[in-house]
Amino acid sequence: MSLETVRQLALRVRNWGKWGPDDEIGTLNYITPEIIARASQLVTAGKVFALGIPLQRNGPQSGTRPRFNPIHTMFRDGGDQPRDAAAVLEMQGYGGSDDWIVMPLQCVTQWDSLAHVFFEGKMYNGFDATLVTSSGAAKNSIDKTKNKIVSRGVLLDVARYKGVQALAPGYAITVEDLEGTAAAQKVTVQRGDILLIRTGFMSRYLEKGNWNYFDLDDSPGVSVHTAPWMHAREIAAVASDNYAVEVRPSELPPLRSPFHICAIPNMGLTLGEIFYLDELAADCATDGRYAFLLVAPPLPVTNAVGTPINPYAMK
Amino acid sequence: MSLETVRQLALRVRNWGKWGPDDEIGTLNYITPEIIARASQLVTAGKVFALGIPLQRNGPQSGTRPRFNPIHTMFRDGGDQPRDAAAVLEMQGYGGSDDWIVMPLQCVTQWDSLAHVFFEGKMYNGFDATLVTSSGAAKNSIDKTKNKIVSRGVLLDVARYKGVQALAPGYAITVEDLEGTAAAQKVTVQRGDILLIRTGFMSRYLEKGNWNYFDLDDSPGVSVHTAPWMHAREIAAVASDNYAVEVRPSELPPLRSPFHICAIPNMGLTLGEIFYLDELAADCATDGRYAFLLVAPPLPVTNAVGTPINPYAMK
Amino acid sequence: MSLETVRQLALRVRNWGKWGPDDEIGTLNYITPEIIARASQLVTAGKVFALGIPLQRNGPQSGTRPRFNPIHTMFRDGGDQPRDAAAVLEMQGYGGSDDWIVMPLQCVTQWDSLAHVFFEGKMYNGFDATLVTSSGAAKNSIDKTKNKIVSRGVLLDVARYKGVQALAPGYAITVEDLEGTAAAQKVTVQRGDILLIRTGFMSRYLEKGNWNYFDLDDSPGVSVHTAPWMHAREIAAVASDNYAVEVRPSELPPLRSPFHICAIPNMGLTLGEIFYLDELAADCATDGRYAFLLVAPPLPVTNAVGTPINPYAMK
Amino acid sequence: MSLETVRQLALRVRNWGKWGPDDEIGTLNYITPEIIARASQLVTAGKVFALGIPLQRNGPQSGTRPRFNPIHTMFRDGGDQPRDAAAVLEMQGYGGSDDWIVMPLQCVTQWDSLAHVFFEGKMYNGFDATLVTSSGAAKNSIDKTKNKIVSRGVLLDVARYKGVQALAPGYAITVEDLEGTAAAQKVTVQRGDILLIRTGFMSRYLEKGNWNYFDLDDSPGVSVHTAPWMHAREIAAVASDNYAVEVRPSELPPLRSPFHICAIPNMGLTLGEIFYLDELAADCATDGRYAFLLVAPPLPVTNAVGTPINPYAMK
Repeated sequence: MSLETVRQLALRVRNWGKWGPDDEIGTLNYITPEIIARASQLVTAGKVFALGIPLQRNGPQSGTRPRFNPIHTMFRDGGDQPRDAAAVLEMQGYGGSDDWIVMPLQCVTQWDSLAHVFFEGKMYNGFDATLVTSSGAAKNSIDKTKNKIVSRGVLLDVARYKGVQALAPGYAITVEDLEGTAAAQKVTVQRGDILLIRTGFMSRYLEKGNWNYFDLDDSPGVSVHTAPWMHAREIAAVASDNYAVEVRPSELPPLRSPFHICAIPNMGLTLGEIFYLDELAADCATDGRYAFLLVAPPLPVTNAVGTPINPYAMK
Repeated sequence: MSLETVRQLALRVRNWGKWGPDDEIGTLNYITPEIIARASQLVTAGKVFALGIPLQRNGPQSGTRPRFNPIHTMFRDGGDQPRDAAAVLEMQGYGGSDDWIVMPLQCVTQWDSLAHVFFEGKMYNGFDATLVTSSGAAKNSIDKTKNKIVSRGVLLDVARYKGVQALAPGYAITVEDLEGTAAAQKVTVQRGDILLIRTGFMSRYLEKGNWNYFDLDDSPGVSVHTAPWMHAREIAAVASDNYAVEVRPSELPPLRSPFHICAIPNMGLTLGEIFYLDELAADCATDGRYAFLLVAPPLPVTNAVGTPINPYAMK
Repeated sequence: MSLETVRQLALRVRNWGKWGPDDEIGTLNYITPEIIARASQLVTAGKVFALGIPLQRNGPQSGTRPRFNPIHTMFRDGGDQPRDAAAVLEMQGYGGSDDWIVMPLQCVTQWDSLAHVFFEGKMYNGFDATLVTSSGAAKNSIDKTKNKIVSRGVLLDVARYKGVQALAPGYAITVEDLEGTAAAQKVTVQRGDILLIRTGFMSRYLEKGNWNYFDLDDSPGVSVHTAPWMHAREIAAVASDNYAVEVRPSELPPLRSPFHICAIPNMGLTLGEIFYLDELAADCATDGRYAFLLVAPPLPVTNAVGTPINPYAMK
Repeated sequence: MSLETVRQLALRVRNWGKWGPDDEIGTLNYITPEIIARASQLVTAGKVFALGIPLQRNGPQSGTRPRFNPIHTMFRDGGDQPRDAAAVLEMQGYGGSDDWIVMPLQCVTQWDSLAHVFFEGKMYNGFDATLVTSSGAAKNSIDKTKNKIVSRGVLLDVARYKGVQALAPGYAITVEDLEGTAAAQKVTVQRGDILLIRTGFMSRYLEKGNWNYFDLDDSPGVSVHTAPWMHAREIAAVASDNYAVEVRPSELPPLRSPFHICAIPNMGLTLGEIFYLDELAADCATDGRYAFLLVAPPLPVTNAVGTPINPYAMK
């Protein structure tokens, strides 16, 4: 029954073929040069908000799933530097340090690619799921978006609109919530916008000073029933300050992530997760400006299905 | 003797203490909100140029040094998706893919942090090199710049100015070259600019279709004697389309990287390497506009000494 | 005060210089060809007990320290195989799979190298701790033992001797326990032996079916005061079925690992941790033979400070 | 045509079902407790030969394929140790080092699991290749052999038999070579033996002092036509001092690895590669004893398709 409900929603928002049979970027197609130019003009104060969380061992992944927190170590450090004049020459005068990282591509602030979720054996635009093998995603990989993820950003601070620090775990954000928030903020969602939806979920963990259970706890997030609204608004992407954009637990059990199913393989909507929105939200509340330039370049990892990012919201 | 020459140049450009004893970002301090706001107004056509090269096994690292090319594989792929209705329910309807990466932080298009190079046992602002241990850099790490790397970008296309596809391997770009290029391009280098210096070196490898020996071959690049000029211009950062910004082999053997020594530990100048500049350069040649908004957010890896990036040049 | 107690014990068991100033393997020097030949003659039934635990995501590391459980994924899998005759030829008939792993060298059943622990700035045989840099251990690394870790193994099943499934968390095994166990088992500890001390600690986790908190919980283990006894017996190595061989919490707070300090940097005693001993112990209880051939080759990782192993006890 | 030749050889040596429909270890079933006990009695001199090559950045993988050389770095090193009494207490007296590794499981001296090679969509014992996904091998993985890889080892030093330091690159070792070598060495190949075939290939690289092109160069190795002989002799495993056991280039182009196809998915024969045999071979030539105890425990990596090893040959 849940499966049937999702299937109907999925078909309603499906964009397969809309940008041709070879398209691999979906709703990012809504972003035009005009939109980018107009959004850039919003940067009048020179303020920059970095929306990426730190990449470190203490992070949002509990390690109970495939994803773990970034592991960062050194190849060379201060202990390897030359210690006297002879060593300086031997090392060509070049004391220095070098480091490396091991990380899931979706372990921190991130974009999901359109190859991240399958529905009934298919990816966005009808590509077969078996095109994702150990060699990576032959279609819909994140590198296809390498110069595509910049547009007008709009913050919808639902938590503030509702007058709470954070929405309750398990609260499903409705279309009415999104429209009410936009109206209260005096901002209009437009074609090509990248929506940043603030639930306040992350604020609780930042206040506690640790990320424990961030990926496992119940969480507020968008309802699966907001998918048609996003489809109608023709937004380019949506991101949130929680683990999965959508509410946890699912509204349609046993399906775990019905909004993901609607958004990624059907609508071709790029999702952003674990965005740090608190500083930006505080500033928007102060100056009343909820629209800005959002620049969030993916790392162009060939055939990858996600990417860590550090988006800049600029006003 | 070389060491003495470098020491004199280094002292001449040294910015220790200039922004207080606790400063860890050096010349990025030159970037002000006014500069950012003005640079954003340069975005009138909505054009976006992604300057990051692909992250993949076929890349610029020969593997003969600590650095290697990114290794990307999957946790889950299309072969793991549910294959029938029962499996769909068991897997909570959520067929999908997940992936991860292992990579040196300086293996692709990148920023060096100010903890990357030591000189005579010290980092930028006089911090001791022993503060960089296996635990990472306690000072001058890249995450200190997390919301700092956006400014006006200026392309100096030295190769085009010299009328060649690429400067000769081993050619040391002089102050006269930089000034001649700027004049020919009708652009003035200003305080807070991020300079992108095009040597054409990468174009050769892209044309050949492989990166073999990119990190080992002789390369054109800036002369160590441009350091005082950059210091006087008060630029915020400098990047290039080669492996090390500076010329290879070194002008001051046996020191391998004299410009690095001047720039990073002494001037506190952030360096960017392996920038893909060809598309941007072609566009600049066409519209005659060599200044633009450059947005190049680092991944905020805690205590790291470098970061992979995908900078956006926007016009 | 604790520090002083440890210092006195450490000096009492210190073997620096005993095998010359260049020695890097410590008590493994006790193992002679005669001992190996005699131990091999113990293999009369052809029974083999593998003492290594599985390398997998579900393992003994909680991830709260640097160590994490092994991460294993594929480069190529069944989804990448050729699917028709043309593909067979194109792929040279070679459908196959390839995989890789990321792991701390001490995350599973393991040997510590003599570079793993420092005391007052020194390693075993007086080598300076600063010889261990990001480049690895210039002295006392595990690869120095590459053909050295085979000898007579002796199981001391202290838990069984005490009549319990497992010793209580925090129980410190005494010299009397070790001697009582040996006597009850009718086995004599000899020079060059590799002692396997069974606390039963791991059995509890295996029974529960998960490793949760294995590395964090209080644990039975040897008392620091067994160090002089081991020194006098001239054993070659000691291993146990817990996380750290020694009891947790420490008998000498605030020092966390006083036995480690005595054993590794002072005695030069190789320690083995997280050994799976239950099957072997059951067999020894049945046939009354507590001595056997133990073959536990390290992976010869150059300059490494530990190694995962899968030791074979053979009877 | 080549495909047809291989298919016929494959069918001739196929052991599917021989040890039941659930078997996952193939010819390792030939090893019995009696064989192990008898082999152990061969250890009379107490000599130990470690057959594993070093795990380090300078190794046999050129990096042009998925496999690369092991990457080993530190979590903690001597630079992180406590530097004064206060730090000693704060760090609980425990100055030490910790390290980790990233490596393909088949990058050094190794065993291939029976899930490593597919033929016409199948693995050994008829299991489907699609059972190997990003989650690993659901059948025939290396951990199934965790206590199985010890037996009588027999060195067949073909290079010495032929009177050369190393067989010529591209030389295919024949059945006659194997039988001639055994006869000259006065050793009889028996059921359950692990054969070590020395080509001398590795000796050349060791003499040059680097591994460059070891994995790419033409190499001597066994002919595909030795497969039926191995099948008839009922050996348990075969290993060699080259990259792939079999000769390179292939005798049956365009098939790259026809012997692999016969051995792994059809015969269920465990292959060992990149074995260091020179010291062992020199000793065998001296004492005339070419049979010994071979103990080569795999790391029991769950669902893995290969394992690095450091086998001990003991006499």
